[in-house]
Amino acid sequence: MLCPVEWVSAGVDLPEGVDLIDQRILPHEFKVNHYADVGELSEAITDMVVRGAPAIGITAAYGVVLAARQAYAQSADKWRETIEEDLALLMASRPTAVNLQWAIDRMRGLFASIQGDPEPVLLAEAMSIHDEDIAANIHMGELGAGLIEDECQVLTHCNAGALATGGYGTALGVIRTAYKQGKIASVYACETRPWLQGARLTAWELQQDNIPTTLLTDSAACHLYSQGNIKWVIVGADRIAANGDVCNKIGTYAHAVTARHHDVRVMVVAPTSTFDLNARSGQEIPIEQRAEEEILNYSGVKIAPENVPAWNPAFDVTPADLIDYIVTEKGIIEAPNSGNVESLFD
Amino acid sequence: MLCPVEWVSAGVDLPEGVDLIDQRILPHEFKVNHYADVGELSEAITDMVVRGAPAIGITAAYGVVLAARQAYAQSADKWRETIEEDLALLMASRPTAVNLQWAIDRMRGLFASIQGDPEPVLLAEAMSIHDEDIAANIHMGELGAGLIEDECQVLTHCNAGALATGGYGTALGVIRTAYKQGKIASVYACETRPWLQGARLTAWELQQDNIPTTLLTDSAACHLYSQGNIKWVIVGADRIAANGDVCNKIGTYAHAVTARHHDVRVMVVAPTSTFDLNARSGQEIPIEQRAEEEILNYSGVKIAPENVPAWNPAFDVTPADLIDYIVTEKGIIEAPNSGNVESLFD
Repeated sequence: MLCPVEWVSAGVDLPEGVDLIDQRILPHEFKVNHYADVGELSEAITDMVVRGAPAIGITAAYGVVLAARQAYAQSADKWRETIEEDLALLMASRPTAVNLQWAIDRMRGLFASIQGDPEPVLLAEAMSIHDEDIAANIHMGELGAGLIEDECQVLTHCNAGALATGGYGTALGVIRTAYKQGKIASVYACETRPWLQGARLTAWELQQDNIPTTLLTDSAACHLYSQGNIKWVIVGADRIAANGDVCNKIGTYAHAVTARHHDVRVMVVAPTSTFDLNARSGQEIPIEQRAEEEILNYSGVKIAPENVPAWNPAFDVTPADLIDYIVTEKGIIEAPNSGNVESLFD
Repeated sequence: MLCPVEWVSAGVDLPEGVDLIDQRILPHEFKVNHYADVGELSEAITDMVVRGAPAIGITAAYGVVLAARQAYAQSADKWRETIEEDLALLMASRPTAVNLQWAIDRMRGLFASIQGDPEPVLLAEAMSIHDEDIAANIHMGELGAGLIEDECQVLTHCNAGALATGGYGTALGVIRTAYKQGKIASVYACETRPWLQGARLTAWELQQDNIPTTLLTDSAACHLYSQGNIKWVIVGADRIAANGDVCNKIGTYAHAVTARHHDVRVMVVAPTSTFDLNARSGQEIPIEQRAEEEILNYSGVKIAPENVPAWNPAFDVTPADLIDYIVTEKGIIEAPNSGNVESLFD
């Protein structure tokens, strides 16, 4: 199984640490970077070597292991205090994906009970987080595929695949399972400007599995819906508010509005670690603004004239009432709202 | 005034013919190509050296002059027959913009009455078409600006500017006039994948006029509308059906659906030469499918994996009921439908 993040044992010249597939250069180059320093790992998250909310969460969990190792080496007595600076750095590496905070909080929950070297206990926990994520994806794949009745074409935006998770994928997990079951004939993948996750990552991932995939520009999707062949838009999420509002890759909101206009159903696939019950609605979710350069250049080629500013929010919020289903590992929420989101967590 | 197409007199080594600003390489390079052969000019239209429905129409009118010169040189008696092959080529150079057909038909309307060398008569007519287009743009600029009440921000898609017309622009004509009148504070320009007319041409054109412009990806527009500052989406058109359905650059339909969802008004600015009264609705307008390569590569840089197909319709159709106003040089149509479109042409 394709895994964007992996804990690897010490090699000859290599300290034990985290391997990340460098997603900035896929699909042209397949390169794995090794991180044994939590500062460098935080930077890698900011720079999008790894991306996708669940994958960021797992990477952060391994990051806590590295931070604990460094803090414990510095002071065996005071590591619980010294570690906090690195955890703050890790926490700030991407602002929107709540899985990052969720994973760090879960790891921190063990600190009090640890005796002696924290690394083995924390590593076991990080590996559990990783394993549980893969298991959740496989289960969500079954649940989501169960919603699809007849063979159809579907559309996805960004990359909510193996590359965005511990493996298998959320939205692409559903697509993988439904394709195996003969319920999906083919997939349309939106290229997903500006970072082109759809063109670079989703098209590549689905190609590995021989799932027929056609690329299109993001703004062509509405025209495609009007032709009647697309029955589902299936996407992941970066953070889901207590009322079911979904924060996901910029462009998801436009898909939801235009899909509803054409009676195309919208399925969001995300583990419960993506929910932020402290955010009452999507309005309370911080939206990361990324560098203008992502829009003004492509791969070193200048696109726009000099001195033209660009507005580059990385995410948007889709109000719950435009979402037909949220599929989680704990079950399916139909027509999400505060009530049925709360019930899921009871 | 910036003019993408111009008839130029013979130079030392240059036969009289058409100059086109090469819009494929703007804004990085400003280069003018000269055409004295109608076959080469047809290819230039197909290759998008010149683009934008009104500019294509004007270019085609000058193309008829070149075709007539070639046909008359071949046979002074039978030029009206020999020319048809070249006119068919010119007509087929882009399938969607009806201004192309309109201009060729208007030029052909003179053939019967011409005595002797057709070039001078046809050149005068082509120049009239060009002059009338500029005058229409300036008039539409006034009419469209009149619809905007208070100072606001507006969004435009693709390039419906001077570069897409004889000069001044349709949508950007309205924006120019309204900006001068203090009714527009600033403009958001969608980059317009895959050809990036917004990033490359609109941002550049508005920069020349010092109109504050911010670029965004096409799929970020919906998120922008939700923030409440954008009051108008102002676009051009490539063909308008008898019922008011508007065929325009891919992505326009998504703007119209998402703008309506947020009570943002949609203004289409197009001369009457853009109407095709033979098309009863947008369903009857042929949508040009362009090469996959436009999506799979950018400026020689491969974006997607090898062997992934792409779907690349160049235009989409916005149903009339999503359009608030169509501004033409003959007047404004509010809430377009078959009745008020017909009235405009009475």
